[in-house]
Formats: sequence, C-alpha cells, structure tokens
Amino acid sequence: QSSVTLYGRVNTTVERQKLGSVSTTGMFNNSSRWGIKGSEDLGGGMKAGFQLESGFASDTGAGTGWPGLTTAAGALNFGRQSEVNLSGGFGMLRLGNFVPESYYATADYVSMHNHDTGSSSDALYYDPVWFGGLGTKNKIGYRTPSMGGLTVDAAVLLHEKAAGTNNKNGYDLAANYNMGPLHLGAGYSYVNSNYQLGLRALYTFGQFTVGGYYQRNKDDNQLNGGNGAGTRNNFRLSGMYAMGASEFHVNVGRANDWSKLNDSAATQWTLGYNYNLSKRTKVYTYYTKLNNEAPTADFSSLALGVRHNF
Amino acid sequence: QSSVTLYGRVNTTVERQKLGSVSTTGMFNNSSRWGIKGSEDLGGGMKAGFQLESGFASDTGAGTGWPGLTTAAGALNFGRQSEVNLSGGFGMLRLGNFVPESYYATADYVSMHNHDTGSSSDALYYDPVWFGGLGTKNKIGYRTPSMGGLTVDAAVLLHEKAAGTNNKNGYDLAANYNMGPLHLGAGYSYVNSNYQLGLRALYTFGQFTVGGYYQRNKDDNQLNGGNGAGTRNNFRLSGMYAMGASEFHVNVGRANDWSKLNDSAATQWTLGYNYNLSKRTKVYTYYTKLNNEAPTADFSSLALGVRHNF
Amino acid sequence: QSSVTLYGRVNTTVERQKLGSVSTTGMFNNSSRWGIKGSEDLGGGMKAGFQLESGFASDTGAGTGWPGLTTAAGALNFGRQSEVNLSGGFGMLRLGNFVPESYYATADYVSMHNHDTGSSSDALYYDPVWFGGLGTKNKIGYRTPSMGGLTVDAAVLLHEKAAGTNNKNGYDLAANYNMGPLHLGAGYSYVNSNYQLGLRALYTFGQFTVGGYYQRNKDDNQLNGGNGAGTRNNFRLSGMYAMGASEFHVNVGRANDWSKLNDSAATQWTLGYNYNLSKRTKVYTYYTKLNNEAPTADFSSLALGVRHNF
Repeated sequence: QSSVTLYGRVNTTVERQKLGSVSTTGMFNNSSRWGIKGSEDLGGGMKAGFQLESGFASDTGAGTGWPGLTTAAGALNFGRQSEVNLSGGFGMLRLGNFVPESYYATADYVSMHNHDTGSSSDALYYDPVWFGGLGTKNKIGYRTPSMGGLTVDAAVLLHEKAAGTNNKNGYDLAANYNMGPLHLGAGYSYVNSNYQLGLRALYTFGQFTVGGYYQRNKDDNQLNGGNGAGTRNNFRLSGMYAMGASEFHVNVGRANDWSKLNDSAATQWTLGYNYNLSKRTKVYTYYTKLNNEAPTADFSSLALGVRHNF
Repeated sequence: QSSVTLYGRVNTTVERQKLGSVSTTGMFNNSSRWGIKGSEDLGGGMKAGFQLESGFASDTGAGTGWPGLTTAAGALNFGRQSEVNLSGGFGMLRLGNFVPESYYATADYVSMHNHDTGSSSDALYYDPVWFGGLGTKNKIGYRTPSMGGLTVDAAVLLHEKAAGTNNKNGYDLAANYNMGPLHLGAGYSYVNSNYQLGLRALYTFGQFTVGGYYQRNKDDNQLNGGNGAGTRNNFRLSGMYAMGASEFHVNVGRANDWSKLNDSAATQWTLGYNYNLSKRTKVYTYYTKLNNEAPTADFSSLALGVRHNF
Repeated sequence: QSSVTLYGRVNTTVERQKLGSVSTTGMFNNSSRWGIKGSEDLGGGMKAGFQLESGFASDTGAGTGWPGLTTAAGALNFGRQSEVNLSGGFGMLRLGNFVPESYYATADYVSMHNHDTGSSSDALYYDPVWFGGLGTKNKIGYRTPSMGGLTVDAAVLLHEKAAGTNNKNGYDLAANYNMGPLHLGAGYSYVNSNYQLGLRALYTFGQFTVGGYYQRNKDDNQLNGGNGAGTRNNFRLSGMYAMGASEFHVNVGRANDWSKLNDSAATQWTLGYNYNLSKRTKVYTYYTKLNNEAPTADFSSLALGVRHNF
C-alpha cells in the first residue's frame, strides 16, 4: 500500500586487536544497521519522507547504543535515525533524530575505506554537540535546495532542559559544494561556547581519489573534568587507488595537543584493501594503528571482513 | 513469498509546554509506531492474520514503554500489538496482545484531531484493566461477524497469577453500530470489581462531524492507594469542520470528582487545525489545556507538528 | 531496490500448566520470531546473503532473551541470528551469530510436532557451547557443498576472553545425509573439555515418519557447581502419522543420570495433534509431561495453539 523500503548494512570483521600489550582475536561489528524509509509524492513538487534506522552488533545480534540516547543494553532502537521531513522548492524541513550534517560534510566524507566504522573509524574527530550530551535528537533541520552545486544544512537541537548541557540548545551547520571532480565541504557545531569547525576537500583524478579535512576544536566546559580542554587542531588525509574491483586505501589522521592538556595528541593511520564483489558487497582487510602521545595504551588491529548492503 | 506489509506512523511536534509555572520548549513524540502485518487466505472464507506493532519516540529514536509490559527503557518491543488471529463466517478469534476494543469504540473514536496521541490526548479516560496492571496482554478475543451493522467484541485477559491484580482475570466488551451518518459504540471493561462503562455517538452532516462519549467508572481497589476512589462520571465532546484540505477541531472533556476523592475533577480542552497534504500526511497545530481542580499543576501546550503515515 | 524478505512465525498457546502441585492457566509464547533476510547474486555462481532474526513473546509483545547474549529484559534484539555469508562452488562461509548446526542436525530435526518450541520443547538436550556461556555468537562457520547428499558444517566460536569460559574457543560440527526416505545426521560441539555428540536418524514410509536421536554428553566443569556432572546418555524417539490435514504425533525422551549426579535422570513425553489449515497455518493441541527422578517438581501442560508463518 505504500513505497516503504527495508534497507541495511551487515559489516562484520575478524580481527587481531592489540591494546597496549594485550592481544585479542575476536569478531567485531562495524556499525551494522537496518532501517525503514519511504517517501510520498504530495504533488506540486512536494514530498513527505521518513527514515527510521537501528544499529545492531552483527557479531552477537545485540542492539547498539547511541550517544545521547538513554536506552537499555543490547536493545534495538532507532537511535541512529528517526526522522520525518517535508521537501519541495523551498528545500527540506526535517524533524526528529538524525546524524549531524557537519559530520557527513567532513569526517565521514573522506573516510572512504570502510564508511568510518569499526576499529579503523576516525578516533580523533570530536563534536561537542553529538558527543557532549545532546546527541542527535530533538532536532529541527533545514536544507536549502541545490544552489549551483551548493547545499547548506542548518539545525537546532532543543535542549529540553536536559541535564549536563547547562540548558543550552545545540546548533549544527554544514555546506557541501560540488564542482566537477572537486568536492568541498564545511561543518560547524556549537553548544554552550564549545564548538568544532571542519573544512574538507576531496578530489578525483582518474583512478585516484584524494581527500582530507581540517578540524578546529574549542572546548570550554565538556572535557578535562568539565574544566575545558582548550583548543585543538585535527588533520586527516585519505587516498584511494581503484583498479577494477580492487581499492587500495591509506588514511592518516593527526590531532595535536589540546591547549590545556599536555600529551593529548594522537596519530592514527590505516592501510586498507577492498575487493568489491558487487556494488553492495565487498571483502576487505586493513591494518590500523592509533598512537597516543600520553602514556595511554596504543591500539592496533589487523582486520578481515565482509560488508553487505541491502 | 508472503503478503507482509510494513506500516507505521511518524508523528512529531515542536511544543511550548507549561506545567504549573514551568515552561519548556521541546520536540515531542505523538505515539509514533511501526509494525508488520499480514493475512493469508485459507480458503472456504477463512483467513489467518497477524499483526506486530512497536512504538518508538520519533523525537529521539528510543523505543517506548507500554502499560502492563515489563520492558527495558528505550528498547523497541511489540508492546502495542502482537496478535495472531483466525477469521471466517464465525467471526474472528484473536490471541495475544492488542489494544482494548472498548477503547477504540469510545475514547479513541471521537478523538479526531490527532488520533488521541501526544500532549492533547485524552487525559481523563480510565480503564481499570488496561491501566490497572493487566495491560493488553495474554488476551483471548472474539469478534462477531457484522450483524446488520452491529459488531460485538469480547475478550478475556488471563491473569497468570500476575502480582498486583489479586489474581483476577480481566474482561473487555465492545459494540459498534453504524447506521448511515450515525455511528454508535459502547465499551465495558472489568477486573476485580473495578469497571468502566463507556457510551459513544458520532454524527456526520455535510462538512461537520460531532461526537462524544460518556464514561462511568467504578474503582474499588486500584486508585487512592488501593483503597478505591469510588465512582466517577467522565464526559467528552468533539467537533470537526472540514473545508478542502483544512480541518478545524474542538475537543472538550470533563471528569467529575471521584466519589471518594475530593477535588479530583478535571477539565481538558483542545483547539486544533489540520492541513492534509495528502491522506497520509498532515501538518497541524493545536492548543491544549488541562485544568485540575486539585492543587495539582495545570498543563498546557501549543504544538506544531507533522504526521506521516506509511 | 533489493530483494529483502520480511518473515516470521507467530506461535501462541493457551495452556493449563502444572509445576509440582501448582496449576496455572495462561497464554504462552512458542519461540515466535520475525526477521529480515536477503541474498544477492554476485555472478559466477557466487552469492552474498544475510539474515537477521529477532525473538518476541507473542503473548505479551516483549522481546525475548537468548543464551549467551547480554540484552535488557523485554527488548527486541537479533539474538536468534545476525549473519552475513558468501557462498559458491566452494561451499558457504558464514560470519556472525547463528544457531548451532549440530542442533539442527539432531534434536531440532526430530522435534516434529511443534518445531521444538514452547512447553513441549526438548528439555533434555544439552549443548556445552550454546548453553555454557559462549552462546551462538562470534562464530565463523563453513558449510561444504552437497557431496552426493552429504553436507558438513564446521564452526568456531571465538571466546574473545569472555568470562566463564576459561578463555576457550567453542567448536561445532554437523553432518547431514539424505538417501531417499532415510535422513541421517550427526552433531558435535566442544568447549574446554566439555562436549556433546548426537546421532540422528529419520525415516519416512507412506504416511508415517519415525525419527530419533542419541546424545552423549560429557561435562567437566560447567554443571554441578562447576565441578562437572560427568557423562550422560540422552535418547529421544518421535513419530508422526499424517492423514490429510491432520497430523498425530508422539515424542518421548529419556536422559539417564549424569555419572556424578544421583537422581538426575528425567523422562519427557508429548502427545500432539496438528490440523494444518494451510502450509503456513495450523491449529494444534498437545499434552506434555516431564518427570524428574530427583525430588524436583514435575511439569505437565495441556496446550491449545495457533501457529502462523509469514
């Protein structure tokens, strides 16, 4: 009776992980998800749409948690997305719970080797709204129509007097611009004098794709025991070489010290290889390493995995 | 391989709510839900069917709880419905968990402006079975075939020695009768000498629809700290004027004092406006107010929302 | 956009159960479930597939738990299955969470009257991997292609240093062989010097089907307060006579004493009758009884139910 689509991603790895001097061989989930989405043509160029998305651990079957959402351990929920929207010539109005567009425009966009999931996901990106308590919920979003290749997203997250946010609304801004092989983006989020600003570029030439982003963080009252960690610069570069069904990936990130936290810098790098069995299915391997400057334990993992989209 | 339908409703509002003297601006869920249903033709006029329905908070993505169901916070579950049924010339036999037909026949039927959901839902209707501990589960239901426009539903809720119900089964009865523009209904539920009896009428003439119900409650041992609140009369009137895609709504409810509880009366009224973008999608606004005679805090809300059925 | 199937089973009974001298009349769930599955043709005889399956209590709507999975009470989860697989001429490689093939090859195979669910399910089968802590998760499985009617399944369950398993991987082996009306199977599972070995045969002649399995258990450190219960022999026979839409069932199981546990033997028997309204839908009744040799309370139940597959 309606055009509803059931979709998802099952993304499972077997990994040899090492945290400090402790090694573990295990099976791991890489942001597996399932969801329901649909849209309705309202006539006159208008559409109504919705999307509900639930994360699950493909290694065990448990439901997964989500920043800022209070939900019981192992339970399925729509923490990843629960949105209703109206779109038309005016753009798109969105209500509910959805991932920040500032993230999609920057960190996610250049994380090409495994969709920014699992043990090789970007460990250095920080968003004071998403990870600082407000999460992704209670959000009113607006997206402009495409203006000569430029799209802008703006959103406000209503605090609803939630504890731990000093009763401040959160804000999220993003811009995406496509000009032939060059893809630019920017993201900004702000809550209670904490912000992050990201700038991203990605360029495709022949079989090569090269991308990167720079993030500026300012933390006044979330980290460092609520005293604020100060400012930080965070850089990431990624490259892909595609050859037939094969993709060779490299991804390197470096976050400098927070200005108020000595030895808080870290470096993360990943070498990856994907073999695309189809557009929806790949087998892959990667080696990833996270070096912390502080005496915190370093992390590394050698992974072998299968990802299937449906 | 089978005719299974995925369906649901995403119903999200932004509201300015006031409880006593405290105001909040927030995003709210209005009984959003998703479900799976299907039926199978068994031949000879017989059918088998099932329905599984799960509530979720469209503002956050969390799963929602349900009266009488023990389930973890924020977890998806089929608390709203989990039913298997067989139907044919004899009527319909239903097993499992489903909303009382006594409610659909009365309070739900006349709550036209927003499906009896959210902050303007009927705050005065009381069902000693549904809200008194037994919930909607462990139910054996029977529905008669239509007898000249009359349908009768009967159900028993097995107590299974559940605590807090004094080991008494619950009972639910409903009748619906349609005669041209006049629609009549009655509902009755009973457990352990507590009951509610509701009578409903709804009449359509031209673009006007007017409905109302009267409910008689008797509470012996659930409310008032288990001492019983006595008897109560509860009235509600609702009206709608439809003009093209627009609907203008008014809804007023008044519950008198419980005979053993002084100042327990309350009045609730709502003014609403719906604009139907399609049969499935509307934008709407309402103002609702609940005045309690007791020194309990009054509640009001001004809401703006989108509802999309799929 | 993809060939995704939504499937499930709603299986609900009303039962008069007796545990010791205490009787209860109630509504019960019999392993109801819903799931999402699909497969993708990758060309060259290869396929990718996935399956996600969630249990729920059809009598109440709550989600159900699963051995070895930590999940909140009443929450939906994919504890029953969350698998991604690749198959082709080489057989099938499976990653994730799925029920032991050793069980499907033995106990499940001969439990014909109600799919080994509910109060008449096999109470005597014991698997030290599945029920001993590792559950069904973190599993790498391989299935051979059919070799003249013979299929072999092998799997390893990664311990991931899980507590309570002494950090030992689990192993599961199964074989199935079909030769006309004769169907043979074997299952073996092992973890930390505990094992179970099962052998199964099922034979069809005309309207009769007769099956049975023998299981040998060895428990070194799981039961008996971790001191080990020793060895045990467990037998089961089942028979079905089909006549049109009717099926008459008998199922008898006998587990002898564990060698280190006096009076630990038990006998279970069930008489059942199914009436198939279609291939997907049946109504049924059974009487089942579990007699424990120990002074533990005996259990019996008279059940009447409906099962609908979708």
